Formats: sequence, structure tokens, C-alpha cells
Amino acid sequence: MSSDIKGKIFKQVSPDLEQVEKALEENLDPNLGLVRTIASHLLFSGGKRLRPLLMIHSARICGYNTGLEILFSIIFEYLHAATLLHDDVVDKADMRRGKQAAHTRWAAPQVVLTGDFLLARALAIAAKIEEPRVISVIADITQAMSQGEIDQLEKKGQRDLSEAQYLGIIERKTAVLIQGACRSGGIISKTSRQKEDALAAYGYHLGMAFQMADDLLDYMGTALELGKNPGADMREGKLTLPLIHSLAHAGVKDRQWMYDMLEDSSFDQNRFEDLKAKLIALGGISYTQAMAKDHADKAKASLQIFEDSDSKALLHLIADYSIQRKV
Amino acid sequence: MSSDIKGKIFKQVSPDLEQVEKALEENLDPNLGLVRTIASHLLFSGGKRLRPLLMIHSARICGYNTGLEILFSIIFEYLHAATLLHDDVVDKADMRRGKQAAHTRWAAPQVVLTGDFLLARALAIAAKIEEPRVISVIADITQAMSQGEIDQLEKKGQRDLSEAQYLGIIERKTAVLIQGACRSGGIISKTSRQKEDALAAYGYHLGMAFQMADDLLDYMGTALELGKNPGADMREGKLTLPLIHSLAHAGVKDRQWMYDMLEDSSFDQNRFEDLKAKLIALGGISYTQAMAKDHADKAKASLQIFEDSDSKALLHLIADYSIQRKV
Repeated sequence: MSSDIKGKIFKQVSPDLEQVEKALEENLDPNLGLVRTIASHLLFSGGKRLRPLLMIHSARICGYNTGLEILFSIIFEYLHAATLLHDDVVDKADMRRGKQAAHTRWAAPQVVLTGDFLLARALAIAAKIEEPRVISVIADITQAMSQGEIDQLEKKGQRDLSEAQYLGIIERKTAVLIQGACRSGGIISKTSRQKEDALAAYGYHLGMAFQMADDLLDYMGTALELGKNPGADMREGKLTLPLIHSLAHAGVKDRQWMYDMLEDSSFDQNRFEDLKAKLIALGGISYTQAMAKDHADKAKASLQIFEDSDSKALLHLIADYSIQRKV
Repeated sequence: MSSDIKGKIFKQVSPDLEQVEKALEENLDPNLGLVRTIASHLLFSGGKRLRPLLMIHSARICGYNTGLEILFSIIFEYLHAATLLHDDVVDKADMRRGKQAAHTRWAAPQVVLTGDFLLARALAIAAKIEEPRVISVIADITQAMSQGEIDQLEKKGQRDLSEAQYLGIIERKTAVLIQGACRSGGIISKTSRQKEDALAAYGYHLGMAFQMADDLLDYMGTALELGKNPGADMREGKLTLPLIHSLAHAGVKDRQWMYDMLEDSSFDQNRFEDLKAKLIALGGISYTQAMAKDHADKAKASLQIFEDSDSKALLHLIADYSIQRKV
């Protein structure tokens, strides 16, 4: 079923995707070769372009269709790439502390500065919209994400992270940006505040569902599907919902066994399979699946205010896809 | 004379300064203690608030005086602080390569993310202006500065850096931000394009003069005046105008002597005094002084289009101060 949904989505968005790719390429426009190299490495390595597509169809569901929605939508891919580059420095720091094995290609300063450049490109396009509220949205996103990331760094390895703290982290890490992309689609359409808020609610719940599905995949996905070994979050000391819920519902012995694994990031595949079995037995997996589905359902319900349209159907499909995807 | 100018400037701007400090404090508004600590460490450690003052008086020279110029002006102090924080990571990287001895207090990720937070606060205030052109100015500044910094990193240690390359570096490193602050003062005043361009020209030339004076001080200032040992640029492999001009006018033997010093960053105070004598003899110091004075004069000349006013007199004084300051 999952690949069915993916096929349907792709069929509907492929003309948009082609234009988005072109706009991403044409507007990058750096003076320096190295900036182009670092930015391109991230931007053109097979991203799903989820955020631009969401903005485009959030605008079109409101009847906006000037063609400019393509240009404006890449703001959110540049922003996304900028935050990934700045997170990369965070991950590099971890690697220096021996916790992370990610391959690093460039020195931290160049990566930070290329992130700044992408943020500047996003702003330059946002200025063309001549809607100060889009700038406020970008400011809110950047403020939430930067503080969220610092908060997550501070909480790394904290084994009593609560579900509420986890929700606060993923909201700022993922949901706020997707919410902002959807709200901005409403803003450029000059739709009613009610419809704009509905789009923001859709984006918020979609972002939460998406991140929970991501956190599930880190346990339940295969190395082949993920392109990296599962269990990366746990190795980095990041507690996510499957583990948080399981810890909260475990007996003393099971809890200690999981704490021991958190302490020792060198666990092997057999031990990781044992952990998965425990997360299933303790309900952490099914609980996270149910929570993700609940957010996906709420995302779809947020769109009830809109008449049926191709864009509405697409946004529904994306919500379904968010919790069924394998990558 | 220098301390005379400083006293006159301070007398005129002290009421503004008080309000700027208050606005910087009130608008910072982080949720996280660590963000406040890192941001405050930089923001409230005795900065001159040059950029806010320039925006305020660029607005007032155009007759703008709603009081909002204070709030809007802190955009440029937050931006300045954000770039300093991201530069700090650049310097940290250098230290890790054994070239830089600066004390570092926090881990790179937290510093990068606090920089992002300050940029977000600047944007949030800029959105309130409801002038898309201010956003374009901020985008242009960020784009120029990030690329300029990468360019400078790439050129570090390049001993045949030309005067033209040096001018390109300091334009992006310093002049673009000061130019943007002055232009934005014109934009919020809704003055004529001609006057706005005059303010931008003032800011550009002031920024160039300011950076040249800074680069001179790194040779001619005392440790007491600078709060750090002179010669830091040379130790980091950064060629600035006094040295570039001297190299271009040196004989084979003197040039080789200077190259040797560039290679060996462990030179002592005696050797550094010898270098200063050589830069004076070869004309590098007087040439840089003349170039800085030329930019300061051009800055003042750019303001001819404006009627006399307190703000005009202040902007003149700041141009004089830029090349006579000791810190």
C-alpha cells in the first residue's frame, strides 16, 4: 500500500517537482565555487522536496495559482537545507566526542557559512513576496529550531526524558518548519485567517506524524531501507518515543537492561534485535504508531474547511504517506 | 584630538545609547538560559553600538523621528553579534589547527545555534517594519558576509594577496553591514532614492575606513589599547593593507624577510617591532592611513546632499573618529 500512495503522489506532483528543481538550481546563485559545492551536495542529493510541495499545494488549495508559488516554495527547501548544514556541525562536534561516525567532508566553518548563505537566499526570495508575515514566519521557525536544537543537545543522554519533553523537541525540530511552509501558502494566497490557521494545523500535525514515523524507522527500518544502520538515535543518546514509552512501562529489570544499552553505544546487531523485541513487547512501538496515526488523522481533519480539490486530495495522500513510508 | 571627538560623540548619543541598550535587552527574549548566557556574553560586553547609532541618525538626517528608529536599529546589532558568533566558530576551527590561541568558552554547536537565534530575532523585528526592502538589505548583507568569510578562509596564508582582493574582503566583512544599516535608516524614512543612496555611500566608505583603521591598529596599537597582543592578523596568516602595500614595494631581501615572518607565527616582540619599522619605511603604514582618510572624506562628502542638522554633524564626527580611534 505504501508504494501505491507514493506512486499516486509522485504522479500528481512530478510537473511541480521539475519546476522546483529548476528554481532551486537557478536561485542558488553563489559567487564562490565552494559555496555551490557544499550547498549542492546537500540540496541535490535526492531530497523529497516535501516542504516546497506542501507550500505549493497549501497555496493552491486556497485557489492561488499564479505560478509564483513555485519560486516562493523553495524558500522552505533552502531554510531546511540551512538547518541541516548547521545541524551537521552539531553532529561533527559529536563525532569529535567519539559518539558519531558520520562521514564529514568539509571543515565546520565552511559548512556553517554555507548554511548562512542559504538562509540569505531564502530571505532574498521571501522579500519578493512583500508579505511581512512570511518574514515573521521565517523568524519564528529559525528561533524555534535554533533553541530546540540547543535544548536537544543539553538533554542528550538524559535517560529520564519525558514524553512531554520529547514532544517539545520534535515540534521545534520538525513540525514548526512544515507548519510554517503550509501557513505561508495561505499567506501568499491572502486567504482568510481561518483557512490559514487550518493549513498551519495541518502542517503541525503532519510534521509531528512525520517525525514520529522517522523515529520509529530508526528502530524498525532495515539498513537497506534507511541507507544507514538502524539504532542511530540510541547510539547518539537520543531518546525517542518508542523507547521513552517502553521505559515508562517496563519493570525494574527491563528498565535497567535498556539503561545499560543506552550507556554502551557499542551494542551489536543481536542485542539491538533483543531491544526491538522488548520495545514491541512493552508497547513502545505500537504506542508510537498510534500517536503518529492520530497526528496524521488530525492533519487530514484540519483540511475539512476546504472544498474538494486536487491539492486537497494530495495533502491527504501526503498525510497517509507520512506514517507508511519506508524511507 | 581623538579623545575630544569621542567625548563630543558620546555626549550627543548618550540618550540614544541608553534606549538602545534597553531595547537590546528587552527584545532578546530567549526561552533557554544558555541562549541568553551566550548571546549576552557577546552583546553586553561593551560594544560601541556603532551600527544602531548609524541607522538611528541615518533615519533622523532624513527627518524621521517617530521613536521607532531605536527598535529598528537593534536589528543591526543583533545581526552583527550573529556574524561574530559564527566567526567565532571559524576562529575555533583555527585554534584546533593550532593557529589561534583565543579562549573558547562554549562548544561550537551552541555558539552556531545562538547566532541563528540572534539572526531570527533581527528578522522578527525587521518584519515589523513592513518594508520588504529592509529584508532585501538583510539578505544581501548575510549573503555577502557569509561568502566573504569563506573567501577569506580560502585565501588565508596566501602571501600574494592583492590590494584588490583585500578590498573585496573588507567590503564584505565590514562595509556591507554598515552600509546596510545606513541605507535602512533611509528606507524607514521613506526618503528619496537619491538620499537613500547617499546614506548607503556614506556607510560603505565609513565601513572601509573603519576596517582599514582596524587593520592599522593591529600593527600600531599597543597591547593595552587593543586588549590583546598586536600582530594577531599576521599570526593568523591574514594579510592586510599595511603589509600588502609594503610587500609590493619591497626589494627581494625585505620581501623574503616578511614572507619568513608570515611562515613562522611564533615571532617575538622584538621581531614584531622590526616589522613595524619596515612597514613604516616601505610606506605601508602611511599608504593605509591615506587610504583610510580618503574613505572617511568620501563618507563625509556623500552627505553633502543633506541640510545641516545635529545628525549630520554626528555622522561627520563618526567619520573623523573612525580613523583616529585607538580602540
